[in-house]
Amino acid sequence: MPAFHPEDPDFEARVTSSFQQQKFMETIGAALTRVAPGEVEIELPFQDSLTQQHGYMHGGVVTAIADSACGYAALSLFPTGAEVLTVEYKVNFLAPATGPRLVARGRVIRRGRTISVCASDVVAVGDSIETPVAMMMATMVGSDKKVRAG
Amino acid sequence: MPAFHPEDPDFEARVTSSFQQQKFMETIGAALTRVAPGEVEIELPFQDSLTQQHGYMHGGVVTAIADSACGYAALSLFPTGAEVLTVEYKVNFLAPATGPRLVARGRVIRRGRTISVCASDVVAVGDSIETPVAMMMATMVGSDKKVRAG
Amino acid sequence: MPAFHPEDPDFEARVTSSFQQQKFMETIGAALTRVAPGEVEIELPFQDSLTQQHGYMHGGVVTAIADSACGYAALSLFPTGAEVLTVEYKVNFLAPATGPRLVARGRVIRRGRTISVCASDVVAVGDSIETPVAMMMATMVGSDKKVRAG
Amino acid sequence: MPAFHPEDPDFEARVTSSFQQQKFMETIGAALTRVAPGEVEIELPFQDSLTQQHGYMHGGVVTAIADSACGYAALSLFPTGAEVLTVEYKVNFLAPATGPRLVARGRVIRRGRTISVCASDVVAVGDSIETPVAMMMATMVGSDKKVRAG
Repeated sequence: MPAFHPEDPDFEARVTSSFQQQKFMETIGAALTRVAPGEVEIELPFQDSLTQQHGYMHGGVVTAIADSACGYAALSLFPTGAEVLTVEYKVNFLAPATGPRLVARGRVIRRGRTISVCASDVVAVGDSIETPVAMMMATMVGSDKKVRAG
Repeated sequence: MPAFHPEDPDFEARVTSSFQQQKFMETIGAALTRVAPGEVEIELPFQDSLTQQHGYMHGGVVTAIADSACGYAALSLFPTGAEVLTVEYKVNFLAPATGPRLVARGRVIRRGRTISVCASDVVAVGDSIETPVAMMMATMVGSDKKVRAG
Repeated sequence: MPAFHPEDPDFEARVTSSFQQQKFMETIGAALTRVAPGEVEIELPFQDSLTQQHGYMHGGVVTAIADSACGYAALSLFPTGAEVLTVEYKVNFLAPATGPRLVARGRVIRRGRTISVCASDVVAVGDSIETPVAMMMATMVGSDKKVRAG
Repeated sequence: MPAFHPEDPDFEARVTSSFQQQKFMETIGAALTRVAPGEVEIELPFQDSLTQQHGYMHGGVVTAIADSACGYAALSLFPTGAEVLTVEYKVNFLAPATGPRLVARGRVIRRGRTISVCASDVVAVGDSIETPVAMMMATMVGSDKKVRAG
């Protein structure tokens, strides 16, 4: 994986501030647990209110933390004032999303001028074992100014 | 689009019952508004608690209703006792997910013995206009008996 | 599907000229059979030299015509001098790609300033029947000037 | 990455034999350069006949070797007589596919009973440098007996 050099030395504060504005992350109880240049980690404790019909975490919840992890991994490499939006993603589900908690690890694969390609792995973390739950490939669009996708 | 003939005449009750077991759908306030053979519609009123940093509905929420719409569209064509799980999906985002409400329309593209291919369109519905918000292509795996993906 | 108005009245000549520069299309024997604003059709007769291990057309060949159909559908809506590149795509395979010929029909779903979202359906065409073979969702990036993805 | 134990000790011969039946791989000049349990490498020298309109290798060609690398990575873990078919894949393009040659490295991420999830990286290989060109996430379906997707 390439080593990235952030354009903005305050990238962590900027990513943290934006994450705190995502009310949905607060609603589901997700926490930003790591911010590095081009890498972001989000944790989510298992909650019964987030489940699908078999009692596992809903795929949309798994996707939500993977998406935010990808987006903030991309944002960490942009300069102050930039915004990043999700163009698209694809998720493969590898195992049921059980507890006690999920961790989504997002990283930038390629930082382009306009388009960044990112990936997230989501794992279910137990006492001493991590089980891969899902993997995401995502395309993000960003710019120095406010942009809308496209 | 092909016309599908459900193997189970009680498909609507079965889909509805499973939907009601998805606690996450209740948590976000989503409702099952249409069940037909191979087609399912889910509505979601805009809620501030489901937003991302720009005040739009979070991509994971959009994905969640698109996923459930695809999954239940597939399930409607399976016999009693069958289960359907999401193998993977891809979502393209077309416009910000604003209110007053989102509607996800899922349909089966191909009903295979094991694997079903489905699609969902998510639109933002206003007084007299629908704006396309996202589109999903999904792969579902199902069987007559309880299965896990793979 | 939205009706698109091409910025360049000579879009057909421009698309045709670019298609003729794709040596791979010539190598496999593909032909551009329809160019409309936001819509392009490519035909490919079955050839033994393009098969996979079971005697069907290789998935990469199916993808190639779907990709070109998407890209040229997008290009048809751009002004003179613009270029379009594929950012990413996803393909679901629905049935074996048999002969006598394949037809890929690409269309623009959303024409953005920078990013266009397109879709292609690939069908196997026989005497009186069309069988869906594959479907693609693609993201294209384009601009008025020469661009590289990202 | 998990270490895989092939069920069939003759997996290499079996994969090689199937690859040789892919006439399209011969048509484009691709060679199978590595077969290990759950891992396959395919090389493709640059050829003018495989290019798109800008003189780079066509995306469909890049995808074809990535697809075959994924499929044979999956097949290497199946028992004698099994077949593997591609359900779907997604490809992100990272840089133009230039020469002198491309290498696709496929690997199994998850080996399920029915469904395998695989990934391929495609790189352009020069004298002393590798440039990432594309990455694929793929879903494969396989069984001990002859199967069709779905």
